[in-house]
Amino acid sequence: MKSLLDDYRFFDPEESVRKTAYELYLNVKDIPILSPHGHVEARMLADNKPFPDPTELIIIPDHYIYRMLYSQGISLESLGVPTVDGTPVEKDHRKIWQVFGDNFYLFAGTPTGVWLAHEFVEVFGITETLNSKNAMNIYDQMLEKLKTKEFLPRTLFEKFNIEVLTTTDSPSDPLESHKRMKESGWSKRVIPCFRPDASVNINSAKWKDEIVGVSKVSGIDIHDYASYIKALENRREYFKAHGAVSTDQGVESPYAHKLSKIEADAIFQRALKGDTTEKDVAAFTANMLMEMARMSVDDGLVMQIHAGALRNHNRQVFDRFGLDKGGDIPIQTEYTRNMQEFLNEFGNNPNFKVVLFTLDETTYSRELAPIAGHYPAVKLGASWWFHDSIQGMTRYRQNVTETAGIYNTVGFTDDTRAFLSIPARHDLARRMDSNFLAGMVARHMITKEEAKSMGKALAYDLAKKAYNL
Amino acid sequence: MKSLLDDYRFFDPEESVRKTAYELYLNVKDIPILSPHGHVEARMLADNKPFPDPTELIIIPDHYIYRMLYSQGISLESLGVPTVDGTPVEKDHRKIWQVFGDNFYLFAGTPTGVWLAHEFVEVFGITETLNSKNAMNIYDQMLEKLKTKEFLPRTLFEKFNIEVLTTTDSPSDPLESHKRMKESGWSKRVIPCFRPDASVNINSAKWKDEIVGVSKVSGIDIHDYASYIKALENRREYFKAHGAVSTDQGVESPYAHKLSKIEADAIFQRALKGDTTEKDVAAFTANMLMEMARMSVDDGLVMQIHAGALRNHNRQVFDRFGLDKGGDIPIQTEYTRNMQEFLNEFGNNPNFKVVLFTLDETTYSRELAPIAGHYPAVKLGASWWFHDSIQGMTRYRQNVTETAGIYNTVGFTDDTRAFLSIPARHDLARRMDSNFLAGMVARHMITKEEAKSMGKALAYDLAKKAYNL
Amino acid sequence: MKSLLDDYRFFDPEESVRKTAYELYLNVKDIPILSPHGHVEARMLADNKPFPDPTELIIIPDHYIYRMLYSQGISLESLGVPTVDGTPVEKDHRKIWQVFGDNFYLFAGTPTGVWLAHEFVEVFGITETLNSKNAMNIYDQMLEKLKTKEFLPRTLFEKFNIEVLTTTDSPSDPLESHKRMKESGWSKRVIPCFRPDASVNINSAKWKDEIVGVSKVSGIDIHDYASYIKALENRREYFKAHGAVSTDQGVESPYAHKLSKIEADAIFQRALKGDTTEKDVAAFTANMLMEMARMSVDDGLVMQIHAGALRNHNRQVFDRFGLDKGGDIPIQTEYTRNMQEFLNEFGNNPNFKVVLFTLDETTYSRELAPIAGHYPAVKLGASWWFHDSIQGMTRYRQNVTETAGIYNTVGFTDDTRAFLSIPARHDLARRMDSNFLAGMVARHMITKEEAKSMGKALAYDLAKKAYNL
Repeated sequence: MKSLLDDYRFFDPEESVRKTAYELYLNVKDIPILSPHGHVEARMLADNKPFPDPTELIIIPDHYIYRMLYSQGISLESLGVPTVDGTPVEKDHRKIWQVFGDNFYLFAGTPTGVWLAHEFVEVFGITETLNSKNAMNIYDQMLEKLKTKEFLPRTLFEKFNIEVLTTTDSPSDPLESHKRMKESGWSKRVIPCFRPDASVNINSAKWKDEIVGVSKVSGIDIHDYASYIKALENRREYFKAHGAVSTDQGVESPYAHKLSKIEADAIFQRALKGDTTEKDVAAFTANMLMEMARMSVDDGLVMQIHAGALRNHNRQVFDRFGLDKGGDIPIQTEYTRNMQEFLNEFGNNPNFKVVLFTLDETTYSRELAPIAGHYPAVKLGASWWFHDSIQGMTRYRQNVTETAGIYNTVGFTDDTRAFLSIPARHDLARRMDSNFLAGMVARHMITKEEAKSMGKALAYDLAKKAYNL
Repeated sequence: MKSLLDDYRFFDPEESVRKTAYELYLNVKDIPILSPHGHVEARMLADNKPFPDPTELIIIPDHYIYRMLYSQGISLESLGVPTVDGTPVEKDHRKIWQVFGDNFYLFAGTPTGVWLAHEFVEVFGITETLNSKNAMNIYDQMLEKLKTKEFLPRTLFEKFNIEVLTTTDSPSDPLESHKRMKESGWSKRVIPCFRPDASVNINSAKWKDEIVGVSKVSGIDIHDYASYIKALENRREYFKAHGAVSTDQGVESPYAHKLSKIEADAIFQRALKGDTTEKDVAAFTANMLMEMARMSVDDGLVMQIHAGALRNHNRQVFDRFGLDKGGDIPIQTEYTRNMQEFLNEFGNNPNFKVVLFTLDETTYSRELAPIAGHYPAVKLGASWWFHDSIQGMTRYRQNVTETAGIYNTVGFTDDTRAFLSIPARHDLARRMDSNFLAGMVARHMITKEEAKSMGKALAYDLAKKAYNL
Repeated sequence: MKSLLDDYRFFDPEESVRKTAYELYLNVKDIPILSPHGHVEARMLADNKPFPDPTELIIIPDHYIYRMLYSQGISLESLGVPTVDGTPVEKDHRKIWQVFGDNFYLFAGTPTGVWLAHEFVEVFGITETLNSKNAMNIYDQMLEKLKTKEFLPRTLFEKFNIEVLTTTDSPSDPLESHKRMKESGWSKRVIPCFRPDASVNINSAKWKDEIVGVSKVSGIDIHDYASYIKALENRREYFKAHGAVSTDQGVESPYAHKLSKIEADAIFQRALKGDTTEKDVAAFTANMLMEMARMSVDDGLVMQIHAGALRNHNRQVFDRFGLDKGGDIPIQTEYTRNMQEFLNEFGNNPNFKVVLFTLDETTYSRELAPIAGHYPAVKLGASWWFHDSIQGMTRYRQNVTETAGIYNTVGFTDDTRAFLSIPARHDLARRMDSNFLAGMVARHMITKEEAKSMGKALAYDLAKKAYNL
């Protein structure tokens, strides 16, 4: 695996591009990491306890990994993925690791393969490629290291050179871990992001619990739409007071449309009774995109929209294992018409910023780049999820840059649950951006000096500015 | 034309990629051909008679060729394409060949051009590029060769190193040619594939004839939905007994939804009376996708779905010349929602395999790779039809691999009516896969050893496994 | 900036491709420019007066430029863009130029950046890259030059080696400037193109004025659908008599469907009363695509369809600044079903030619190339607007060529309002086509001789033939 960590990895093989790419990469390689959107849990860093073992650290939290294994007929039970109802699953983490080793070849040519190579070599000093034979030996080596101080979460955080890490949190979250972290005297910046989905998805089985939770933490009794909005505003203030700079909404469609207060309240009342239609759900979500934008104008939190996943496509997996188990599948997504009301209301407002993410790459050149290349409030988020990869990043830059330039984008967002993959992902992004810029230098579209300044913007400045960090 | 048959053709011009690609290609170049889906007629190999002439062999059966000529204003009549009603068309095959020669330049940069170069040079030893001047001379050279034993269908089959060739056959087909071939003692493996479309397309003018035919060959009197299903099951068994390992459905949309037996029978009865609506047709097709999957679970035949062509778009051409005359045009295709019921019902079933093909490349990274990268029953078919080409294959691998890996794909499928193009197409596929893998080696994403093993999988192992060959 | 004008710019950095690309480019570099579709105003060439200053020449007419500046929060007022109601905007053109200089870095990596580099260096001999410091100095240098005879519009036209320039004109336009140009004895060919949109868009606030205008110039009193059609036919004849060879329609959707005369007249009467529904508007546009095609069969004007922009997406910008201010955003576009009636009616007609343009790149390989690769009447227009760029042109050729070949395309169309960018745009197109062909030579798909002949076709022959020039 060592050979995969070549200095020139991921660059265009053509000599002149490769050399320039490497030069540009060296220029940004050691800049601190800004991670303005992700899913690492604050508790891990608040507790700062040793990671129990390689399986717990690498396999269990990463749906990229067990999605692929599952696609080849390996059951989630055998991978130790916990069930919703507590039905027992494989508990022998060595056995699970062996399955992983047996099937590691499946990841060849995938971003997961690339990140894991980075993690094994750079973080653990493991240079052999994982396989059936060496799986247990590698497990033992890693286990040994995980017991040391060097592998405590905060130590790794510092080693990874992370300047800001953003977690993602529901309105009902009291942000205890964030508080605890601060109180511990640890000086690193770990900030929450306000993700209202649990409060907005009125068709979710857990919606009412969330509303009760928000009532409790806000001290505002939510009984109608007005009190609901007031409580959310209250929670945004709370998040802001605890360091938040942004919000994030995950929506199936980016359709936005303001309801009258009467209409919104009628749906809200039906939701309280558990009596909503599919139309209600769509209308409410569309309305909440408008409401959240309005609140952002007021409180200055940067709005993010992640659109286009049909969540829990595989009911069997969802019913047994719950959310985020690799069974979300993207759908066609439309921004031009769906967001017209939104953009006309807020897109020209100098006090507003919205960052758009997509899983439908056809929208890059057709809709998103033209929108970001015109509306002052809109910035484009990085290539996301299934497209957070060598080819995916390349397509993103190729399709977006000519219409939106680089200055209407916000740099890299890792969006990961896998703590160890953060440096691997940012390194990959910096390499791909360097390579993209080097390609333009080699084609005489930009000078090398311009490329250097653009490279720094992509690695650091744009994220810092976009998220007011 | 000779110069086009360069050893390094189709590879990335960059030296390091090119060399590795060639090395990987040499590793798979001579592996026998598995052709698990195509449209060559079994009768040709059963009869094993000499091909009459170059025009009959190369032009008349190939809608890729006369589609392009027609687009430039050359009438199908002048190309000898037979009419539905028997109105006479050009019968002078030398004259047709001259038109082909006059317009051969139109194919520059197209896959047809590339395949033809291979056929001319490798099969016929013709090294000049076809043009107006040499057309008749080349015709004569080819005609001479076609009279020899070396150019008999079975001899070519053996020369082409084909291990398995799959034909495509309707439920009513008695598979006489397949039987005859076996009885002749010829040991090569030519197997049928069960294509129920003629039995499923209740709006086709020929549907009733097909139903009568299926009744006859199955010995089951089809008079309602239940007997229809029984007869299809019977035919699948018959196909299986004659070597079939797979089925195939060509559908406009991959929408699948189970009807109740009562609903299905109601539509079936209307179909018998020739009295169906557009809605009936869509509902019946959607239901038959579910039925065929259920039967596959029972009998183990691998299911294939080819979706996304609006057939017979050009009514004028269809009315005069019939099906498959170059007038099918692709449409936007959606899999995530359309196949959700199907995938929830069968996608997790270890006794089921379905291979998905598309004409809408936007679904590669957005829908198909995520679906194949999650559901154990789903594999992705090769880039198909308009995308069975240098750029098309490149886009396919670039868009699919990062999410689905290579092990959720099934290797190459030529899907051709043009017998002579089989080795040309497989050679092209092996070259493009070698080139894709070499690009990853040069970027240090995989090692050369991994690439070799992946190359063999793509050229042979994956198809063998997916189709249980 | 000088270094950006490298002889090998935009070519693949790989040595063999680069060299062949350059060789192919030299072969077409000096061929006269055919510009069969664009938005330069005839009046400029009829008047032949000096351009007032760099800001008036380069910034004010170019929505590519102020779109990008606006996206970064720079107001259109401060860029001197005139308001609809005459509210004053910035009049100090030096100040506007300074803003442009301050923000010139935004265009790095965009086609506007590339065209401007060409204009600065090749037209004005300015070799420094524009920035905050040198903005005023460069402004003065340019201003000086604009006063000289060498910078008169006609002199530049001749220097640019333009053989044919097509303007775009409404049916009500009396073509005074075209007449004046001819009468002045200037021998260059500047021809109108019949763009009926103002007469077809029955929901536009200015529609009635246009109808009054058409009545006036045609001498036909438009009071119903029949007289409307007659007047349009009359205007087409008039345009033809003044050199027109083509028409052009800009439509949101390419949906075409013939209405009965009664239906069409009913909508027309509602339009006269200002009382149309959205459905009326769509039906009327669909009908007018059919009508215009019918007229083209009759009078031989080549039909063009530019589909897929949702015009004036940003109402705030539209209300204040009017049309074409950078606020048009593309939408998903469908051709296969939408144009089926159209293609069945006219697509096989040897007396008809239609050139299709798209803003939805997903249709290149899925719909447009298959349509153009089959229907004799259909040709594909160049990559357009947001896709008139290095990556955009590359994607176009890669997605279109394998199915449609190059001979079902029509060469390059600049479609520009920015007179000075014409040579820059054609030079870019010739370079990208040379590079594309060189890539095929390097991969042994075509010979270098074939590439040379294809290069000439793309640079000149195909446009000449398609537009009957």
